[in-house]
Amino acid sequence: MADKLSHIDAGGNAVMVDISAKAETARIAVAKARVLMSAETYALIANHGHKKGDVLAIAQLAGIMGAKKTPDLIPLCHPLPLTSVTVDLELVDGVDAVEITATCKTTGKTGVEMEALTAASVAALTVFDMCKAVDKGMQITDLRVTRKEGGKSGTFVAD
Amino acid sequence: MADKLSHIDAGGNAVMVDISAKAETARIAVAKARVLMSAETYALIANHGHKKGDVLAIAQLAGIMGAKKTPDLIPLCHPLPLTSVTVDLELVDGVDAVEITATCKTTGKTGVEMEALTAASVAALTVFDMCKAVDKGMQITDLRVTRKEGGKSGTFVAD
Amino acid sequence: MADKLSHIDAGGNAVMVDISAKAETARIAVAKARVLMSAETYALIANHGHKKGDVLAIAQLAGIMGAKKTPDLIPLCHPLPLTSVTVDLELVDGVDAVEITATCKTTGKTGVEMEALTAASVAALTVFDMCKAVDKGMQITDLRVTRKEGGKSGTFVAD
Amino acid sequence: MADKLSHIDAGGNAVMVDISAKAETARIAVAKARVLMSAETYALIANHGHKKGDVLAIAQLAGIMGAKKTPDLIPLCHPLPLTSVTVDLELVDGVDAVEITATCKTTGKTGVEMEALTAASVAALTVFDMCKAVDKGMQITDLRVTRKEGGKSGTFVAD
Amino acid sequence: MADKLSHIDAGGNAVMVDISAKAETARIAVAKARVLMSAETYALIANHGHKKGDVLAIAQLAGIMGAKKTPDLIPLCHPLPLTSVTVDLELVDGVDAVEITATCKTTGKTGVEMEALTAASVAALTVFDMCKAVDKGMQITDLRVTRKEGGKSGTFVAD
Amino acid sequence: MADKLSHIDAGGNAVMVDISAKAETARIAVAKARVLMSAETYALIANHGHKKGDVLAIAQLAGIMGAKKTPDLIPLCHPLPLTSVTVDLELVDGVDAVEITATCKTTGKTGVEMEALTAASVAALTVFDMCKAVDKGMQITDLRVTRKEGGKSGTFVAD
Repeated sequence: MADKLSHIDAGGNAVMVDISAKAETARIAVAKARVLMSAETYALIANHGHKKGDVLAIAQLAGIMGAKKTPDLIPLCHPLPLTSVTVDLELVDGVDAVEITATCKTTGKTGVEMEALTAASVAALTVFDMCKAVDKGMQITDLRVTRKEGGKSGTFVAD
Repeated sequence: MADKLSHIDAGGNAVMVDISAKAETARIAVAKARVLMSAETYALIANHGHKKGDVLAIAQLAGIMGAKKTPDLIPLCHPLPLTSVTVDLELVDGVDAVEITATCKTTGKTGVEMEALTAASVAALTVFDMCKAVDKGMQITDLRVTRKEGGKSGTFVAD
Repeated sequence: MADKLSHIDAGGNAVMVDISAKAETARIAVAKARVLMSAETYALIANHGHKKGDVLAIAQLAGIMGAKKTPDLIPLCHPLPLTSVTVDLELVDGVDAVEITATCKTTGKTGVEMEALTAASVAALTVFDMCKAVDKGMQITDLRVTRKEGGKSGTFVAD
Repeated sequence: MADKLSHIDAGGNAVMVDISAKAETARIAVAKARVLMSAETYALIANHGHKKGDVLAIAQLAGIMGAKKTPDLIPLCHPLPLTSVTVDLELVDGVDAVEITATCKTTGKTGVEMEALTAASVAALTVFDMCKAVDKGMQITDLRVTRKEGGKSGTFVAD
Repeated sequence: MADKLSHIDAGGNAVMVDISAKAETARIAVAKARVLMSAETYALIANHGHKKGDVLAIAQLAGIMGAKKTPDLIPLCHPLPLTSVTVDLELVDGVDAVEITATCKTTGKTGVEMEALTAASVAALTVFDMCKAVDKGMQITDLRVTRKEGGKSGTFVAD
Repeated sequence: MADKLSHIDAGGNAVMVDISAKAETARIAVAKARVLMSAETYALIANHGHKKGDVLAIAQLAGIMGAKKTPDLIPLCHPLPLTSVTVDLELVDGVDAVEITATCKTTGKTGVEMEALTAASVAALTVFDMCKAVDKGMQITDLRVTRKEGGKSGTFVAD
């Protein structure tokens, strides 16, 4: 494990890490999150009649747009030309949860974990926003990177 | 409990809820989240020498700025003139976690839960960004609203 | 009819009109636009199987979010706290067109025509984006204000 | 003609198309639009004394800046490093119209039609904004792509 | 003079000052700046033939738009509904300088000094951008608040 | 010295200069600025007890984030993938000033002077914002480019 935080220099100052000399390689990152809710809220989303899936469709689009905002939100993130963003939302029966999976790609000098995490996070927040009138007790949990490919640190996989 | 989702109309379309006729009242919302990490990462943040707290200070500022981006990120959120944003980050010994608390206020026609949740979320993502070079297995969990005051639905409190 | 352009002063300079002394009143504006396309493209949107309406749902959300960007896009527009945005898209049989109607509301010192026009415009551009792989010859036409209420100039109605 | 909409996957979900494997080529797109207005409004713009052209100059700059906002506005558009944006506005005598032509260039994996269309659209909206105090009946029409070069689909030309 | 920095709390944390309880009053702020340049650059701007003033007109519009970006740029600034922004640029003969004056107004709970300073700053940077191909040695100086009205601290005037 | 302004064409129109045919080279730019303040304000920043350096740390982060906003602020600036941004703030004893140095890098078709100047400018404005409650008479001065490398115009160095 590295022994220092890359975004803080020897003098304790914040830095946007210098990636000028790094090679451009193909990068992929996958992030996941869950939104936990009451059984009633879950049923409302799942059984939304002819409107089934509306909450999920809106959250999906919000997540994709959110990925593009990453360098505006995360102070030391580099701006990156994303070449692909997908966000999937699935209803997980039995646990009354929405499972979110965001995948980002680029060809660039640095990875896209933060973009995938931001996409999943914004999608989760949008589910919250759309259901909060009926359920203020929801929780967003387990936001994490589950896969990362590309760059000199190689492939990382987690559950 | 309300029996419908406020952001979707009878025809299944997304709507920004019409709040034109609502009264302006004082609003407060508090959101919390946790970033779980390895013991080594926790120690790096906690024992950062003369630079102690740098990760937390940067994440705090990112969270405050993130609150102001809420209507850009969450599709059906109303733009709101926030009158106060505070974000606190604390190291929680024993569980190797950073605990984040975001509080937003406004005087307006709608609540600021999404602003508080977004602030906590962006602060958590920033902690992740600054530590990911040493710890790719971090998790952001338990993002939730713990307090909401103002508006006709009254006060909501959760743990 | 007024005989001068409000956004240019006597010296020929651009100005954001001073509305400091104006009263806050309830404002509504409605804008419409059409996207003309080939019969094949129209059929693809209309008969999209279980995915019916996806293009329209995405464009609708883009329009709502676009309304919130108006002061970022239109140089001399005042920032406004929108209290309601709705965007409707309808398939118009016989003319192979998508008809877009955007309605914005606020309580403020100035009108929301530009917000409604921007919402309709962004929704139309999003339809174009999603169909351009199959039809580069689409046209966006008839973008106009069809209704305006509030403020000292009173109600305006057009077809 | 392609038989499917590229931005919607087999499951009916919105996707930002994966362009990771596409080659970077030189891209050009040209879009045009017209703003139709009353004879009086046209005369105000055309005969603006020593301030001639002010409306057009402001709209031109707004169009250029608008091109850079395209990925913020159009949900499934890729962020692109534009290498050139020009926007021209001409008074068209006889029809009381402002004709707008926007040209965008990049070297990239995908085309710049949406950037050119957005530039023309924002320029047109800005003309509307600056003249709406004297003419609420203006119309923005004929927004379309008139030229596209680069990429595997080759050159497209329309009137 | 106050003896503490309002944006940092007792624990050393950044805060967006809580203005919830403050009254809404009419606010005005004026900021000024100068761009110093070579005699040749000054002459190019001043004698720009039929295009006279183009640099100044573009910088003026950039300054107005910049004022609206203030809460995006300055971390602890409150979002404010600006009711008026004017930016004037004048050529100052004899010293080869462009003098910029920005005036912002709002009715709100806090002042608009930062908005006026940001407008002047962005206008100055835009002059620099447009002239830097011919003069890399320009300087932006004397950016300051020259007038502030409204709020409990009363009127401030400086040269 | 060049005899024309690159951002204005022969017809007097604003243009985003066409850099499509330029080579991508390594680019560096350094900008500096000073914030002049009263002795009391200087002492407050310098002797801020256990909170020493907070003003400077917040301004530093604001400067880094500001660099990423450059193409949003400066109308004719090209969007650029910055590969490094550093901002340093130093207390200059004897003159009661904060000295700001911003360094930006990219590999691209055009330089990053405007990004470095914007970073320094936003950092300076943030110092102003945080101290203005105690000192309305501060001045931001001497904002300039002190170094530029890369591109066909070669290296530029100034004091």
